[in-house]
Amino acid sequence: MQCSFKDISKLINKSNHIIITGHLQPDGDCLGSMLALYLYLQDIGKKVQVVLDDEIPLSFRFLPSIQEIIRPSQTLCSQADLIIVLDASDIERIGNLSTQTSCPILNIDHHKSNTNFAEFTYLDLSAAATGEIICDLFDYLHYDPTQAIANCLYTAIATDCGFFRYANTTSATLRKAAFLVDFGAQPNLISESLQMRAPEYIAILTGVLQTLEFFHNQQIAAITVDLTKNPLLDSEGFIDYPRYIEGIRVAIMFKIVDENTIRVSMRSTDIDVSQIALSFGGGGHLRAAGCTLTDNYLNAKDKILAAIENMLRDD
Amino acid sequence: MQCSFKDISKLINKSNHIIITGHLQPDGDCLGSMLALYLYLQDIGKKVQVVLDDEIPLSFRFLPSIQEIIRPSQTLCSQADLIIVLDASDIERIGNLSTQTSCPILNIDHHKSNTNFAEFTYLDLSAAATGEIICDLFDYLHYDPTQAIANCLYTAIATDCGFFRYANTTSATLRKAAFLVDFGAQPNLISESLQMRAPEYIAILTGVLQTLEFFHNQQIAAITVDLTKNPLLDSEGFIDYPRYIEGIRVAIMFKIVDENTIRVSMRSTDIDVSQIALSFGGGGHLRAAGCTLTDNYLNAKDKILAAIENMLRDD
Repeated sequence: MQCSFKDISKLINKSNHIIITGHLQPDGDCLGSMLALYLYLQDIGKKVQVVLDDEIPLSFRFLPSIQEIIRPSQTLCSQADLIIVLDASDIERIGNLSTQTSCPILNIDHHKSNTNFAEFTYLDLSAAATGEIICDLFDYLHYDPTQAIANCLYTAIATDCGFFRYANTTSATLRKAAFLVDFGAQPNLISESLQMRAPEYIAILTGVLQTLEFFHNQQIAAITVDLTKNPLLDSEGFIDYPRYIEGIRVAIMFKIVDENTIRVSMRSTDIDVSQIALSFGGGGHLRAAGCTLTDNYLNAKDKILAAIENMLRDD
Repeated sequence: MQCSFKDISKLINKSNHIIITGHLQPDGDCLGSMLALYLYLQDIGKKVQVVLDDEIPLSFRFLPSIQEIIRPSQTLCSQADLIIVLDASDIERIGNLSTQTSCPILNIDHHKSNTNFAEFTYLDLSAAATGEIICDLFDYLHYDPTQAIANCLYTAIATDCGFFRYANTTSATLRKAAFLVDFGAQPNLISESLQMRAPEYIAILTGVLQTLEFFHNQQIAAITVDLTKNPLLDSEGFIDYPRYIEGIRVAIMFKIVDENTIRVSMRSTDIDVSQIALSFGGGGHLRAAGCTLTDNYLNAKDKILAAIENMLRDD
């Protein structure tokens, strides 16, 4: 059932023990929204727990109360009378928790791909982030965010619109960010925490940038990340280097997971890379897609390049 | 004389031929503010010219009317009855134009280091960018920006606050950005244009990253850019690499302009680098400052490092 903020307010009021969760491979929007709602529900005196069936990336450890996020367990879920699933468009995306619960689920999300899996759904496709919806909810509830909540929501919103760079940035997005700054959000602390890297990062980046290759008349640029040499390597943002080169229509990042597993990310300016990803069992969006090939690096590279060149030729 | 928006409005009204200029080594705030004001003055029917005594970096060629910016000449200046200097805190910062003019100067700026050099000065230290002041001026004048002007001002504001990442980002900054999006500013087009690089960029960046050095117990990180090898090199953003390393308190970029000219940019987390820049004849802000040393690279580096280490020790 599609629900309103009024319905959400009623659901929360009548629930005594609420579990908040989000999607696997959590991002800033997922974690920021979870923690903002968690802190609010605590503030109004609810029994509430934040649960996630995945590791939390180290770069988010600056978020207030992030250490309170726990892994799901059977006991936990059997006691709850409401589960709030944030920023996940699909029940599979919340992991193990989905098989452990029989209590009603309220899903708050902004993804077009939302499968309407929950008993109660609040879906706002115009929101750049789930964090925007939580902002609107607080506004509806006349709740003034604390500084901790403001920082969580600013992180949620800013990370999902690339710090107000992506096409999903609306004036409403920016006004909510302004509202959060008024309530104490600290853009510089958030941004610096998110950008902070270990001292060895620059050497790793330098190594990755040295793998840059051009193909198809400088219309394709590819970089390669070798995870067998450095399994903990965080390749977040690396694909932007081949992506923002003049004349490049398709950027590729090959990640060598092991000898026979090659993970491929693609970005394009004008061709549908989700088709290519799909043909190798992957998926994604028109301009940003990915897949995993069970093959060695050179074969995988040949296959992906052939598929892209084929599409560029047809164009 | 410190002046108000009312004074600015009167000055503009009584002037027939206005020249707009900005500082050498123009950045997004300088160029975006210049073009926004230029387009406005054109729109209200003034004879107006945009003049700059320096090269325009290629990354800004997407800005509306950027091709209208011309180099200064004697004839030009002798005809003007008002010169508006934007985003420059010092008369030397506008280059040759300063020696060619006897007509009154209106200076609109947001830098603490402003020397009050003009007949009329509008200085707002709380503004993250001169673009914010131009926004306020348009608001005072009840002028609705065109899409071209909105894109110029969004560029001005966003570049000077690091796309809403720096500590100078206030809720007013974000609300002005929202206002500009309402009037057609396109954050994604601006951001993509600014991020776009020439194909050789990554090789250059890789070379620069290889110059990374650490000093003072890994509290200082420095990179060196050799402009004698590559005079056209755009080093914008390079300083963020040493800056966002865990534990680094001061990041430095040395630019070798020629054998005896070393340009220095500094960023800090907790010490006042503008003091150091000032002591070498430069200037800037508390956490971001720069200066130019007439010395060889090794001497310049020693002097700057000694000054920073001295301040870190006193801390």
